[in-house]
Amino acid sequence: MKVGKKNFTTLWVEKGNRIKIIDQTQLPYKFVVTELKSLNDFCDAIKNMKVRGAPLIGVTAAFGLAQSILKKPLRKNIDISYEKLLKTRPTAVNLRWALNIIKKKVLKYEPRDRGKIAMDLAKKIRQDDIDNCEKIGLNGYKLLEQIYLKKRRRLNILTHCNAGWLATIDWGTALAPIYKAHKKKIPIHVWVDETRPRNQGALLTAWELNHEKIPYTIIVDNAGGHLMQTGKVDLCLVGSDRTAINGDVCNKIGTYLKALAAFENNIPFFVALPVSTFDSNLRDGKKIPIENRDGREITHVNFLENRMLVERNIYFNGAEVINPAFDVTPYQYISKLITENGICSAKKDSILKIIKKSDKNY
Amino acid sequence: MKVGKKNFTTLWVEKGNRIKIIDQTQLPYKFVVTELKSLNDFCDAIKNMKVRGAPLIGVTAAFGLAQSILKKPLRKNIDISYEKLLKTRPTAVNLRWALNIIKKKVLKYEPRDRGKIAMDLAKKIRQDDIDNCEKIGLNGYKLLEQIYLKKRRRLNILTHCNAGWLATIDWGTALAPIYKAHKKKIPIHVWVDETRPRNQGALLTAWELNHEKIPYTIIVDNAGGHLMQTGKVDLCLVGSDRTAINGDVCNKIGTYLKALAAFENNIPFFVALPVSTFDSNLRDGKKIPIENRDGREITHVNFLENRMLVERNIYFNGAEVINPAFDVTPYQYISKLITENGICSAKKDSILKIIKKSDKNY
Repeated sequence: MKVGKKNFTTLWVEKGNRIKIIDQTQLPYKFVVTELKSLNDFCDAIKNMKVRGAPLIGVTAAFGLAQSILKKPLRKNIDISYEKLLKTRPTAVNLRWALNIIKKKVLKYEPRDRGKIAMDLAKKIRQDDIDNCEKIGLNGYKLLEQIYLKKRRRLNILTHCNAGWLATIDWGTALAPIYKAHKKKIPIHVWVDETRPRNQGALLTAWELNHEKIPYTIIVDNAGGHLMQTGKVDLCLVGSDRTAINGDVCNKIGTYLKALAAFENNIPFFVALPVSTFDSNLRDGKKIPIENRDGREITHVNFLENRMLVERNIYFNGAEVINPAFDVTPYQYISKLITENGICSAKKDSILKIIKKSDKNY
Repeated sequence: MKVGKKNFTTLWVEKGNRIKIIDQTQLPYKFVVTELKSLNDFCDAIKNMKVRGAPLIGVTAAFGLAQSILKKPLRKNIDISYEKLLKTRPTAVNLRWALNIIKKKVLKYEPRDRGKIAMDLAKKIRQDDIDNCEKIGLNGYKLLEQIYLKKRRRLNILTHCNAGWLATIDWGTALAPIYKAHKKKIPIHVWVDETRPRNQGALLTAWELNHEKIPYTIIVDNAGGHLMQTGKVDLCLVGSDRTAINGDVCNKIGTYLKALAAFENNIPFFVALPVSTFDSNLRDGKKIPIENRDGREITHVNFLENRMLVERNIYFNGAEVINPAFDVTPYQYISKLITENGICSAKKDSILKIIKKSDKNY
């Protein structure tokens, strides 16, 4: 998607299998492209959120493992690299999904062939992510179009966190239908939840929409309920980090509160996700591990000073905090799930049918 | 209540009718006492939130009007001063309530007597606020005690914004029962909502609790639903800026989302308020004017640098924002209202009975 007048993706491969990413910890203050070389670079990029968003975490991990296999294709290194990458973040299931695809496949081959196979697979996972997100966009667009044809006025869409192209390779999940609708001239305005503590809404989603020239307004996370109550939200559209087989959706902390408010006010609440975000091992959302991140993400903020990104404590010293990063929205509050394989209900039967369509992709 | 080892109130009268306040825009970074002299000082203190919280806004306005009447007791000045003070903030009804008490009474007297009468009334409103908050504390304590006697373990109480002693003269509204329970040795831990955009939870409530040595943990506003879902909240306790006669509660933006989550998870949701916060002119909460404040409160943050309070933009330049400061929680989500006259249901009949008990106070 657009950064100024140029098109970008969040991660790409340059000659000689060099992996480049946009360092998202610098956005929107600075646009910095950085190369990931060692396994540590990949782990650090995921853990410290230079890349973030479940789909992008998956693709990055795939390239991390592939690069490591290129260098050392023996089983022991594959196992160690796999574990190291898997441990970087606990909640997004795409990480495990991507690593499993590569590990499972390369081990069927001789060590000398493994590097190329792994790298080709990572490239395929990346390209599939782009294609799947575009399909999510087209499928979700149909839902937006339906609502637009009823209301015949600008649609106000509330989104939480960043599930835009910055959370994937391109297009995004929750924002993909918005981009498609905008290109097809459906008038849209997006309420962007700030998304404390890391403000991915204010810093990334608003930045994306701004570059695509889609009208948006940032609100504090507290404001969404009030806007829904007073008729200013037509639908909610968010992403997911992991979705259980019964339709319980794990996503950025605060999603659950918005789903409750949408439900109370009869506002559709849609979740857009690639099939790789379903965890078919999980019967429901209760067992999804919720990452507790550093309290410093709450107490400190970043800003630009003399062209440098600086960090300052905005609380009093020694303030006690905890920082759970995700919550689980029970299936009954979710109107529809939007995937690359189509739209389905947040119910086991529907989800299983949707997953089945992707069974033989790898 | 305690600041370090000394007891303070938020506003007090020194010799010669000099009005002193704690400048809350400097907390928790600096403890600054300032004098309010001119009518402009009073208006600025309310508008720019050097004093905030519905009860404290009411008392401050009372002294602002009284000081002005002391200087110029003629009707014209009383009317102008009344209007100027009334316009400072639209949502908290205590402001109008306090101004009405003074204006109505002084106009019955000769100009030469009005100054002293107004000042005496303001002092009575201030003292009543202290007494009423202490009664709210004792009444609310009974509710906490009941829950404690059932659970027999530390109570986890979630609160939003600051409805502590800093929002009143002393004791607070929502925090008064917590202070009373703590003094009576009921073990308590408070989940403090950060309360974006101005972070009154993180900056004021946590600071109060810290000085009173009550265990607390600050969370982002997004986290409360997740904590309720996972059994980590025993009750919610908040204040109010205006409550309609049917029990609809207007309070800091985000209160509604917490009330919904409490309701969904069968967690009691209590609102503590003095009777002066009821607006008996309002049949329900829909007509309560919701203040839209400067977007700068969202885009900019304060912190201490070289002992100076500085302000920085943490968003990208030109980011679009809106900043509604309050929302309305419908009565059906509120378990009980806690007032100085007793505990009542969020229902018209109960509320009218409670209000009646205060009818002849002024």
